[in-house]
Amino acid sequence: MAYATEDNITGLAVERWATADSPRMAELMTALVRHLHAFAREVHLTEDEWLAAMRWLTETGRISDDKREEFILASDVLGLSMLVVQMNNRFGPGATPATVLGPFYIDDSPAAPYGHDMSDGAEGVPLFVHGTVRDDTGAPVGGAVLDVWQADSEGVYEAQLADVDEARLRAKYRTRDDGSYCLRSVVPLGYSIPMDGPVGELVERTRISHFRPAHIHFLINEPGYEKLITHIFEEGTRYLDSDVVFGTKRELIVPFHRHESGTAPDGTAFDTPFATAGFDFVLQPKA
Amino acid sequence: MAYATEDNITGLAVERWATADSPRMAELMTALVRHLHAFAREVHLTEDEWLAAMRWLTETGRISDDKREEFILASDVLGLSMLVVQMNNRFGPGATPATVLGPFYIDDSPAAPYGHDMSDGAEGVPLFVHGTVRDDTGAPVGGAVLDVWQADSEGVYEAQLADVDEARLRAKYRTRDDGSYCLRSVVPLGYSIPMDGPVGELVERTRISHFRPAHIHFLINEPGYEKLITHIFEEGTRYLDSDVVFGTKRELIVPFHRHESGTAPDGTAFDTPFATAGFDFVLQPKA
Repeated sequence: MAYATEDNITGLAVERWATADSPRMAELMTALVRHLHAFAREVHLTEDEWLAAMRWLTETGRISDDKREEFILASDVLGLSMLVVQMNNRFGPGATPATVLGPFYIDDSPAAPYGHDMSDGAEGVPLFVHGTVRDDTGAPVGGAVLDVWQADSEGVYEAQLADVDEARLRAKYRTRDDGSYCLRSVVPLGYSIPMDGPVGELVERTRISHFRPAHIHFLINEPGYEKLITHIFEEGTRYLDSDVVFGTKRELIVPFHRHESGTAPDGTAFDTPFATAGFDFVLQPKA
Repeated sequence: MAYATEDNITGLAVERWATADSPRMAELMTALVRHLHAFAREVHLTEDEWLAAMRWLTETGRISDDKREEFILASDVLGLSMLVVQMNNRFGPGATPATVLGPFYIDDSPAAPYGHDMSDGAEGVPLFVHGTVRDDTGAPVGGAVLDVWQADSEGVYEAQLADVDEARLRAKYRTRDDGSYCLRSVVPLGYSIPMDGPVGELVERTRISHFRPAHIHFLINEPGYEKLITHIFEEGTRYLDSDVVFGTKRELIVPFHRHESGTAPDGTAFDTPFATAGFDFVLQPKA
């Protein structure tokens, strides 16, 4: 091997990582080396900046734990997460588009019947979300599971709380034979990303808004269809135009209708305020 | 703001990070976004690969501590550290070239007189390194401090050991008026990078050699000259051509002469084997 110089070191490093056992790993690692070196060369990275980057990366790992995914947050605010979502979910124009999974998903939510209240006593304005799950021909998808999770009316997820006994603001609903579903919850609030870590420290040094608009997460993974991970957003809520993780999409914004009293979509009579939102999911058939 | 699509998200993210308070931070962050996105697009990064990368980064931070710098190691094996060193130390052709600092530097080494034995009882073949420190005109630099550290004859640094009372294989020597220096140590051994962490896990999946050739570290930081962080390498030692951190440079390789017995450069008489190595440092004047 030639000894490294400023001119040849990228080629030498590419040559080495091209020896990876798997062709895909060789492709990933050699591309990583090329782009990483191109970045350092373009900005003429100084030794102090390099060391600061090493410390930032270390701290970002060290602050992460079961309840906090600081590297995913970094990927989110750099637009990388949403780019990866878009590249890997190129659905047809009629299908419901995907957006970011986010760091707060818990995978063992309980099964819930039509209209079930998943709030587990969380305070807030009752919200019913209802609609259908269909395929791209308009045919209903009966028996489809909607895995749902959301923040509460203060913008906090169960995954951020210690000592929660029951599932809180998350549940798995199944569509009826006609593709219809109905969930009961509370109106969620938008929220700030955690600003007390290395990602927040970077964002603080910019004019970037550190909030996400109010939304509800859905995951639908039915045989024969592309897995759909998406949100619905409340129309008119704050931060729709400045979502810190770039997750907003126009097709996912729906009105949350406010009612002073009346009958909810599941037949419950209310003499206090509640809200309703309709959303029809269209699944992308597997290629 | 426009909502993100696969096509526009890089531009949107660049726009946001361009709002950084400091122009240099804006330059760094927007370039980072561009190169990171270009990497993901070029390899069409899958969602599983993205998640594996997030986990790898987190683990790399979490394994790091006072004695272990796994992100610096990652930077080393990707050739990034040596690239940054080269870009920031463009010395004239006569000057001693720089190489990587490495993760084992301890900054409070004790002052040691000419010829002092810095081995603190570490076993091995006694080694004397001697020579001069000069400027680019050949004039001696008297009173220059050589901050020296190295691995022992088993390839282990003090920084990797628990409970070391005295400085072990590290010291600060000062040149005499004629620019001369002499240190006493033991012949170091080349060594493997730590292979029990996330970096080792990647390297294991390639045919990359995970060793560094035997070397001794020097740091010379004199007023009026560029700071010099470098090594000397033993000529003929293993791994010179495959240094896992790309740190070898031809100008830094010198013979370690082996003697069965005789008089050492500091005047000590030996009736057992010892080694000597001569190396003259040439400092780059500050621009």
